[in-house]
Amino acid sequence: MHKIEVGTDILATNDSLAHHNRQHFIETGVYVLNLMSGPGAGKTTLLERTLAALADRYHIGVIEGDVQTRADADRIAATGVPVIQINTGSACHLDARMIHDHLDVFELDELDMLVIENVGNLVCPAEFDLGEHDKVMLLSVAEGADKPGKYPVMFHVAKALVLNKIDLLPYVDFDVERAERDSRALNMDLEIFRLSARTGQGLDAWLSWVEGRIARVRSQHPR
Amino acid sequence: MHKIEVGTDILATNDSLAHHNRQHFIETGVYVLNLMSGPGAGKTTLLERTLAALADRYHIGVIEGDVQTRADADRIAATGVPVIQINTGSACHLDARMIHDHLDVFELDELDMLVIENVGNLVCPAEFDLGEHDKVMLLSVAEGADKPGKYPVMFHVAKALVLNKIDLLPYVDFDVERAERDSRALNMDLEIFRLSARTGQGLDAWLSWVEGRIARVRSQHPR
Repeated sequence: MHKIEVGTDILATNDSLAHHNRQHFIETGVYVLNLMSGPGAGKTTLLERTLAALADRYHIGVIEGDVQTRADADRIAATGVPVIQINTGSACHLDARMIHDHLDVFELDELDMLVIENVGNLVCPAEFDLGEHDKVMLLSVAEGADKPGKYPVMFHVAKALVLNKIDLLPYVDFDVERAERDSRALNMDLEIFRLSARTGQGLDAWLSWVEGRIARVRSQHPR
Repeated sequence: MHKIEVGTDILATNDSLAHHNRQHFIETGVYVLNLMSGPGAGKTTLLERTLAALADRYHIGVIEGDVQTRADADRIAATGVPVIQINTGSACHLDARMIHDHLDVFELDELDMLVIENVGNLVCPAEFDLGEHDKVMLLSVAEGADKPGKYPVMFHVAKALVLNKIDLLPYVDFDVERAERDSRALNMDLEIFRLSARTGQGLDAWLSWVEGRIARVRSQHPR
């Protein structure tokens, strides 16, 4: 019982800090995307592809969250985009304070987009608001189509779902229609993209959507 | 400190019950709208108008939440729509358990829409997920355009904002552009309707949106 109370006290504090972050993002006009998935669904690969396509036209910053290592940050740094690595230690998710304490690394008002790659986990990151504009989740078709029922909160809070690794569809049992139907039952406005970050198939629709989101924030916060 | 822990423990329990409610709503295919505002912003009048326009074509149920009295439920009952009144006693909001414990009053799988009119309060109802599809908030232009800054959570979680009592605009200092700009800064996808529930001005766009939401749920849950 004590453990639960500590956990939920943390949640309430987090919400308050997340709203503080949100004010920063509103004032500086930067679009903030929180990228979430289970381990190995392809977040970093999608991010590399996204940066390769957009970094010549937009100022983008990246925060990498991992329990340990700076392997993902090194991959992102290789693209030339400014990146910081947060190691959460024992925590299975990023929280609003970790984000807040690292924001001064970036010149937020010169960024068009800040991407936060969360710790690979389909549970806790869904509960921790970071102050972002959009939560985007990836689901690899190699993980199976039963995930909406098992992780309903993640599917409910996401703005968009990326069904990744569709190049593997011929080799796995994954019912795309079922996954999409069950996802939309939990979240009827969910945007869904079917793509392969590895091969590049389906990437254009995703990139257009990201650009639209950046433009939408920009239209509401003229610099 | 103890008070905060109790409060946040309630929040975590509420989230779990809200997801349970959501499963009921998904399984029965009923669209659920949680209507929220400060006191006297016009929730019940908007609801009367909405029922008058839609109740001949849709099966609609209503849950009225108030600290005390069944005055609002009596107004809704006069329209012929099935309604129950929940008196929260000391609580300034409805919670997921109150909704769950009253759902058996309705034949959910025969309803197209269930409207939950929350307690008049711009703070706590925003924090308590009921399992609804959409949170809709009303702001009366008589309340002032400074409300997004003062009640950011409510504006952040709402799917739609009804700016009500626009027939009073000539008589009050209310900067519509500022209110809409500040609202969208907190929530860039917010749908905004300017209307007067009393005169009927602007009601059509609102009604079309509600019908679209009912249709969207229906399309995802064919009966």
